Amino acid sequence: MTEESTAFVPGHVTGFFSAHPDDDPSAAGSRGAGITLSHGVDVRVRRGRDRSVRLNGVPVDLEAVDTVLGALSAEDAVVNAETPLPLGAGFGVSGASALATAYAVNAVYDTQRTENELVGIAHRAEVEAGTGLGDVVAQARGGLPIRLDPGGPAHGRLDGVPASPRVEYVTFGSVSTETVLSGDTRALTAAGERALSALRAEPTPSRFLALSRRFAREADLLTDRVGDAITEVREAGGDAAMAMLGDTVFAFGNDLSAAGYDPTVCSVHAAGATLHPTE
Amino acid sequence: MTEESTAFVPGHVTGFFSAHPDDDPSAAGSRGAGITLSHGVDVRVRRGRDRSVRLNGVPVDLEAVDTVLGALSAEDAVVNAETPLPLGAGFGVSGASALATAYAVNAVYDTQRTENELVGIAHRAEVEAGTGLGDVVAQARGGLPIRLDPGGPAHGRLDGVPASPRVEYVTFGSVSTETVLSGDTRALTAAGERALSALRAEPTPSRFLALSRRFAREADLLTDRVGDAITEVREAGGDAAMAMLGDTVFAFGNDLSAAGYDPTVCSVHAAGATLHPTE
Repeated sequence: MTEESTAFVPGHVTGFFSAHPDDDPSAAGSRGAGITLSHGVDVRVRRGRDRSVRLNGVPVDLEAVDTVLGALSAEDAVVNAETPLPLGAGFGVSGASALATAYAVNAVYDTQRTENELVGIAHRAEVEAGTGLGDVVAQARGGLPIRLDPGGPAHGRLDGVPASPRVEYVTFGSVSTETVLSGDTRALTAAGERALSALRAEPTPSRFLALSRRFAREADLLTDRVGDAITEVREAGGDAAMAMLGDTVFAFGNDLSAAGYDPTVCSVHAAGATLHPTE
Repeated sequence: MTEESTAFVPGHVTGFFSAHPDDDPSAAGSRGAGITLSHGVDVRVRRGRDRSVRLNGVPVDLEAVDTVLGALSAEDAVVNAETPLPLGAGFGVSGASALATAYAVNAVYDTQRTENELVGIAHRAEVEAGTGLGDVVAQARGGLPIRLDPGGPAHGRLDGVPASPRVEYVTFGSVSTETVLSGDTRALTAAGERALSALRAEPTPSRFLALSRRFAREADLLTDRVGDAITEVREAGGDAAMAMLGDTVFAFGNDLSAAGYDPTVCSVHAAGATLHPTE
């Protein structure tokens, strides 16, 4: 029907989380909280002769995207993803690419799935690829998502922090999500569960940031550069935390710029995954 | 903390529904499907000396808004709602006003509720007032919401039709929601359940519109003017349906203008309830 379609999915920074593996990738996932960003991924899909997947113009191997194309029988899709966000730095680019691909393929190939079905397909693809546990369901929702239960839409309930703060971030480099998630996650999960209980009792952006800051230290994930940045922001009277999982520091308002950094600035994205209007 | 806060909630047009009363207003509600609109309600809240509620500058009695203020102990709130949508014409203005009030009060009075808690408060208030059964949960979600279960966030699951069509509508007048909901809703509910099953099997905007058109007739709710408009749109090769519950006809694309009408035009609103940025 539609020749070509484009979907947008916001970036997502997790502040804290607990890992909940499961043999069923639909039930596997994470609990925790994060922020969805006005910076995200636009994915344009059209039918072609052979499958091709590009990120910012460069051919790329994104396992979760390939899995989504297989699940929707879009073997000949031409997928062009564009994003200002860095890969591997804790912004959920892989999950956003998978979810936006699912939305755009559904429109072009008329595969007639509901939104929950598309989110479920992308969540499973991301879990199977080992590149994320909770980004997709958060990115499908928008706002400041709280993941109450692990898993895709058939399993996991979500809630949110009702706020729309300005967001600043600085990326120093990558952290391997696969390495962290495949290691011993017991201490991390205990710290994540404590943070989640505390946030539900006081669901505000400042509390989210303080709990995220503490989580990175308790889970022993804090990098030197993010640790230094947090110290400087705190000395300037602000607060900041680390993106899970990337060598990235983020803050609300102007707390990073007030501490002398030159951050990238965006806002919380109120909506989740969205198909671009076709008319 | 915040002196004054403004929240936006999209309008919502239900296409078809089934009614599910319950002694517990959190569990009561409706199943069905609809569209959220870029036209909605902005509610500005600040502390005052005495409670005051205005809609487009005029003092107004909105029971659901009063109930929300009571539930959040905001007895002295000054509430100013602004909307381009008509009241009582099937756009969920009452539900949007209640939900936006909850979000803005939460920010001004620092009542520290999560989004689900705020949606639950507004849903109960709307059900108790008898002015709606499913608008609030749909308006909290955005997009083209499918209400799989009746009730507030603790009860009702939602899904959605993944699409962003242009929307046209014409309002001829009001229909009393209270009168319809307090009558015998068995035929209506049977028709609504059939439409819901059919939409879940084929979740597209055109199918939603066709099912909604059929529902209005089967539930015996079609007004003469909406019936005439639908006939004219169909003769011009388009499709249209009736807003539940109002003397309002709506369509996608340019189907109403192509049939010679001069409709109001808006788009599907991707996001649900949103607090305006404070900075």
